Amino acid sequence: MVYAVAVLGASGYAGGEAVRLLDEHPDFHIAYLGAHSQEGLPLSSVHPHLSGGDRRFGSNDAGAVPDVDLVFLGLPHGSSFEPAVALAARGMRIVDLGSDFRMDTAGRYEEAYGSLHPEPSTLASWVYGLPELFREQIAGATRVAAPGCYPTAALLALAPLVAAGAVDGDRIVVDALSGVSGAGRSLRDDLLFGSVDEGVRSYAVGKHRHRPEMEMGLELFTGGHVRVTFTPHLVPMQRGILATCTAPAVEGLTAGRLREVMQRAYEQEPFVEVIDGPPQTRWVVGSNRVLISAVLDERTRMVIVSSAIDNLVKGAAGQAVQAANLMVGLPETSGLPLSGWMP
Amino acid sequence: MVYAVAVLGASGYAGGEAVRLLDEHPDFHIAYLGAHSQEGLPLSSVHPHLSGGDRRFGSNDAGAVPDVDLVFLGLPHGSSFEPAVALAARGMRIVDLGSDFRMDTAGRYEEAYGSLHPEPSTLASWVYGLPELFREQIAGATRVAAPGCYPTAALLALAPLVAAGAVDGDRIVVDALSGVSGAGRSLRDDLLFGSVDEGVRSYAVGKHRHRPEMEMGLELFTGGHVRVTFTPHLVPMQRGILATCTAPAVEGLTAGRLREVMQRAYEQEPFVEVIDGPPQTRWVVGSNRVLISAVLDERTRMVIVSSAIDNLVKGAAGQAVQAANLMVGLPETSGLPLSGWMP
Amino acid sequence: MVYAVAVLGASGYAGGEAVRLLDEHPDFHIAYLGAHSQEGLPLSSVHPHLSGGDRRFGSNDAGAVPDVDLVFLGLPHGSSFEPAVALAARGMRIVDLGSDFRMDTAGRYEEAYGSLHPEPSTLASWVYGLPELFREQIAGATRVAAPGCYPTAALLALAPLVAAGAVDGDRIVVDALSGVSGAGRSLRDDLLFGSVDEGVRSYAVGKHRHRPEMEMGLELFTGGHVRVTFTPHLVPMQRGILATCTAPAVEGLTAGRLREVMQRAYEQEPFVEVIDGPPQTRWVVGSNRVLISAVLDERTRMVIVSSAIDNLVKGAAGQAVQAANLMVGLPETSGLPLSGWMP
Amino acid sequence: MVYAVAVLGASGYAGGEAVRLLDEHPDFHIAYLGAHSQEGLPLSSVHPHLSGGDRRFGSNDAGAVPDVDLVFLGLPHGSSFEPAVALAARGMRIVDLGSDFRMDTAGRYEEAYGSLHPEPSTLASWVYGLPELFREQIAGATRVAAPGCYPTAALLALAPLVAAGAVDGDRIVVDALSGVSGAGRSLRDDLLFGSVDEGVRSYAVGKHRHRPEMEMGLELFTGGHVRVTFTPHLVPMQRGILATCTAPAVEGLTAGRLREVMQRAYEQEPFVEVIDGPPQTRWVVGSNRVLISAVLDERTRMVIVSSAIDNLVKGAAGQAVQAANLMVGLPETSGLPLSGWMP
Repeated sequence: MVYAVAVLGASGYAGGEAVRLLDEHPDFHIAYLGAHSQEGLPLSSVHPHLSGGDRRFGSNDAGAVPDVDLVFLGLPHGSSFEPAVALAARGMRIVDLGSDFRMDTAGRYEEAYGSLHPEPSTLASWVYGLPELFREQIAGATRVAAPGCYPTAALLALAPLVAAGAVDGDRIVVDALSGVSGAGRSLRDDLLFGSVDEGVRSYAVGKHRHRPEMEMGLELFTGGHVRVTFTPHLVPMQRGILATCTAPAVEGLTAGRLREVMQRAYEQEPFVEVIDGPPQTRWVVGSNRVLISAVLDERTRMVIVSSAIDNLVKGAAGQAVQAANLMVGLPETSGLPLSGWMP
Repeated sequence: MVYAVAVLGASGYAGGEAVRLLDEHPDFHIAYLGAHSQEGLPLSSVHPHLSGGDRRFGSNDAGAVPDVDLVFLGLPHGSSFEPAVALAARGMRIVDLGSDFRMDTAGRYEEAYGSLHPEPSTLASWVYGLPELFREQIAGATRVAAPGCYPTAALLALAPLVAAGAVDGDRIVVDALSGVSGAGRSLRDDLLFGSVDEGVRSYAVGKHRHRPEMEMGLELFTGGHVRVTFTPHLVPMQRGILATCTAPAVEGLTAGRLREVMQRAYEQEPFVEVIDGPPQTRWVVGSNRVLISAVLDERTRMVIVSSAIDNLVKGAAGQAVQAANLMVGLPETSGLPLSGWMP
Repeated sequence: MVYAVAVLGASGYAGGEAVRLLDEHPDFHIAYLGAHSQEGLPLSSVHPHLSGGDRRFGSNDAGAVPDVDLVFLGLPHGSSFEPAVALAARGMRIVDLGSDFRMDTAGRYEEAYGSLHPEPSTLASWVYGLPELFREQIAGATRVAAPGCYPTAALLALAPLVAAGAVDGDRIVVDALSGVSGAGRSLRDDLLFGSVDEGVRSYAVGKHRHRPEMEMGLELFTGGHVRVTFTPHLVPMQRGILATCTAPAVEGLTAGRLREVMQRAYEQEPFVEVIDGPPQTRWVVGSNRVLISAVLDERTRMVIVSSAIDNLVKGAAGQAVQAANLMVGLPETSGLPLSGWMP
Repeated sequence: MVYAVAVLGASGYAGGEAVRLLDEHPDFHIAYLGAHSQEGLPLSSVHPHLSGGDRRFGSNDAGAVPDVDLVFLGLPHGSSFEPAVALAARGMRIVDLGSDFRMDTAGRYEEAYGSLHPEPSTLASWVYGLPELFREQIAGATRVAAPGCYPTAALLALAPLVAAGAVDGDRIVVDALSGVSGAGRSLRDDLLFGSVDEGVRSYAVGKHRHRPEMEMGLELFTGGHVRVTFTPHLVPMQRGILATCTAPAVEGLTAGRLREVMQRAYEQEPFVEVIDGPPQTRWVVGSNRVLISAVLDERTRMVIVSSAIDNLVKGAAGQAVQAANLMVGLPETSGLPLSGWMP
């Protein structure tokens, strides 16, 4: 059986990547592509790298979407509320790549986004779609909110350690480095080649929207309480996130135990690999893979755990497809690349 | 039926790309990976981006290769002679990604490479593997020499025009821009990031080895005689070739006729698309596609025809797979990506 | 004596580079900085890399400019007419980095820019400011139009050859590669990092505005008539232009004679060096230098002459300062960097 | 008075930058250039971007160095011992850009470099050359060890906070991002453009040689004891270091007090500026400037302090010149660029 799907917000970077992956997916068929300002234009006008470029964008309105088995939403922050409610009412499965339904509570949403959630009563019906941590909930779900890119990298690095009580969850420092595609396709002076190339910067220090999401993910997974200090950095490359997470080791933690915790957590996971040396983003770009390594600095008694993902694949479209696979009962790895590209 | 294949020289950039494509190919199965200095090491030691990284390299010796249906050779210049002869003697099909058997005559080989061909009598048994120009020969062949990256780009741009008599084949200027992966994975000071990043250069001006190959391809295809002035350039990017070819228009050539010649040449081709505006390498990187556009500068009566390819896919591994598909009777597009990646 | 200068359009890339060079110039002092939308803001708001960042932009209106010895105009196309006329009426020397007064005739202007020149009678009072070709005229001038970046690179490569009758001026092909700063600081989707990084493209094929300027420069210098086919390319780097120029050698031209023509042309020039191998842009970026090499392809009887410049220095602000030095009688090299930076 | 200087190890990245800065310095004159494998070759053979390229390298042997006022050593780790002792014996001032004399004790040296210091008795005669922290010692010194690039960035960010008792010095986390020139000009596969471009990685996690130097600098400056967890990252750019330092705030620290501590520390410094938003490396590349910003994350009670430098200027050659200025009694800013370049 092939499942018919729609992609709204298909003109953005994450939307385009979803189209690329879905076109190569043996079990999904794209029946509809929605966009906002590109409505009526061919796919090639914004994604000249995709085949089937003569397919035309419809609108992002829920009413324009035909009856399909599953809808991927790749809409800007705040734009998923309306179509999500309308499409859910028609009984369609939804995977939202955006940020509107990721938080478990309205309070957390307000903490992250600085405004009231317009549909707080719906939040409980959404599942946070990080399969490695919440696989069972996703498998039975009809509405899944795919995690943000930074939280995906940080949560997969930290969750086993916090769950095992190996680190002090109250003093976690996450410094993450992202390629520019994470910032989306916006006409901003600070995203021009002349502004980005040959330089690095941190931004939103102490107040990035993904910090509450990281804490939520850790708390949902472990049942405990954590505090994360998060500093994102923009790096002159197109794709990839490297999260360097540092936290105090609990007394008695050994390098052997650290390795054991990490290995055990992911030994069955098809997309996650725990490696010895520090991971590089180049090793995962283009794939849905996650590479993680953990080091115990005996001298300072700090654990440094690093993870690398492709922000547009495992951090967005790939993860959404992975969740969709689970939702409809397909093998979780169906249609998802395990090899990346290099050089 | 699935065909068993071997890849020798699998540790290089082109070899690694061949592995990536063949792993995703539904009809080929990699039975053997050969390498030189990495013999005995796992695939992941040089290609950490590829899945199945625990597969180990055997040697590049023909004697170590099991009986397979087809062997891809991705060996350095001068290293294909021995294994090619030995493997051919065992009746295996061969696609050589290297430069040892591309020339039609020993004289042309000497012109390009400055040395005598060690096995001149074998040259006639090889087919020049550019499917869009020599499809019929490839389909029946057992030994195919896949074209070089620059010639692929230049030949696809120029061949229809020279064949149609639309340009003066004696005054062709090819200025081509290549990403760094075209230079291979060599420890050279001029290939360090510190040397390449943020700069461009031309090299081998008037004496690049691919120039005779371009002339050969045009002459084989058209039966005429041409002269090409070729200047390659190195650009700070990993993949992609853009060939800008300029040649005097013959009297009477119109923009309409130019467009007609180009469109007609490629209207049935699955991988080649003639477009209106100038092509960008980003639109093809990661795919086996070729984008071409042609302009008639009425004022100077020059035709400028440009083509963009991914040098590691259409310019190397993808083209080799395309030829292999033809050789064993598979659909030509089998296992080859039509969409690239962006950003 | 220190000359007081003003810079209008100081918020752009070329304007900012002019400020950088003038701040380090021992004989010029910046008395006024003008900008359009940044009027009233501090210099640091757009050029955080410059010292003295608390200096504030005034407007670009001529009336706001104090009496200074010389004004540099770094304004967008079409914006220099008014201030140039007004400032000239006040007796101030002007160096225009823009394109409004570069052409020798109204007809040439219309050919390049597709519109009528609004002040055609003033054109004769402007000098084309390429010191290596038109030094004497610049030395006595009060109004100098600094050449465009591509013409600077192409003219310095070609002028000696055309003047010496070494090549057929009617069949010149110029393929030039430029860093992104040449496109200016505009909020365009195709100038985003996500659009530029890791790709190359040609643009404005056969119709770039700098082509008529190249022809004009060659014709003014040689008194003859030439025809140039020009294809510009955008390369993922910030600075630098490499011009690869190809033209048929005249009968009898030898490699020795070619070298002699080039060496003789520039042996006295402080900023131009004729070298043996092909030049790289990295070798000149940050400096006002020009590197040129010329090759005779004996087989095709084509001359390939290449030049490398920093488009913001020798191709814009540096050349403007060089011209200004000549205008006020300073040593031509005063305040201009001869060393670039690398890596 | 102009001081004659020599540069040994002038063929490396830092050595080349020293030559660039010294050539533009009004009070220093380069009398000798030493190199190892390039002995006898012209400067242009390794630094084609520098003017005066026909100057030839002598050897790195102390005996070959003429009598000069000051010698800059830019030698690989372990290579400064011999020439330093010999040159000091001849009474010449020395600034060592390398790592051989940076540590205050033999024990610290062994901790950092894993081997015994060959001349431990000489260590006490060297001054750690970070002018903003140890200006007085440098002013009277004849032997100065210029700090490493990462320590320069981290120390300037952290020293005022630790000195003021504003943060818990025992739990400092430094995540620093460096351009590739920091790794030097070595023929290593992982420094090829194909390996570096489009990816980030951490390395030497928990065991980088610069960590003990950071702790030493903080302890020398504050008299206290600190512990730093340091993770360096390699970023695809040529120059620049961004250090993101996170440490627990002491009880009672307010954002106002934090700002006051930082502002007061650097208000008189010519090269250091405390700014509000996060610094970008692009804003300092090419200059000797340091930009720093500090944020108090009230929720987690963590201070995040960031600093940006050019690793080859303030992190190497510029700082060495700054120290040399102090040593000979010149104005500290003499010959040092305050403006960088951008784009």
